[in-house]
Amino acid sequence: MSNLIDIVDAPLLRVWGDAVRARRIQGEQITLAIVELEPHAIVPEHRHEAEQLGMVITGEMHFTLDGETRVLGPGGTWRITANRPHGVAAGPAGAVVVDVFTPIRSDWDRLEVIEGETPRWPTAG
Amino acid sequence: MSNLIDIVDAPLLRVWGDAVRARRIQGEQITLAIVELEPHAIVPEHRHEAEQLGMVITGEMHFTLDGETRVLGPGGTWRITANRPHGVAAGPAGAVVVDVFTPIRSDWDRLEVIEGETPRWPTAG
Repeated sequence: MSNLIDIVDAPLLRVWGDAVRARRIQGEQITLAIVELEPHAIVPEHRHEAEQLGMVITGEMHFTLDGETRVLGPGGTWRITANRPHGVAAGPAGAVVVDVFTPIRSDWDRLEVIEGETPRWPTAG
Repeated sequence: MSNLIDIVDAPLLRVWGDAVRARRIQGEQITLAIVELEPHAIVPEHRHEAEQLGMVITGEMHFTLDGETRVLGPGGTWRITANRPHGVAAGPAGAVVVDVFTPIRSDWDRLEVIEGETPRWPTAG
């Protein structure tokens, strides 16, 4: 399989209810995911062993990390070292973000694949 | 320092001549970089120990990896495991891409900081 693919050709995974979905590419050490959050989607505070960095591409969200909350728009980033508690609330237009993890999120292999959805980003044309 | 910052507040680094510049956040294990490529910028074929995954945010580029070349627009991705040769030629409008590396690119600590440049992405407003 090619190592140069369009992210929209990767399966869409049901990450957190119906409101948070993602496509990903898997390296040997890094997972790179494009995560689509519906308007007002909530990711409750949680934590995991994997280090996670990320950035907003479109839209807006309230990001809480280690007790600090900031409103992040395009170019807003997060730096979550292992086991730090974090949570998110998407803005009224939703958001599309890039999230990267190491080690890879093999636990996502068990997520349900959603068929036939149009990507929130990039938009066609 | 906050772990929730706007990428435009990170220093702009001169990565590859004047035509390829980047801002980054550093985790303990991952570097997340937003790389700005001028129109027709060239990154000659090279290789490095760090694993590198990435994706086009805006613009277009010709990406060559392991002898395969593809034209990538927004959402186009690359998956470069350790020491695989890769090179890039940006399209006529340039490109802005996200690149992530593990281990972190500590060698970028030595890069020149460019002052006073307006980011190519996100655009103001």
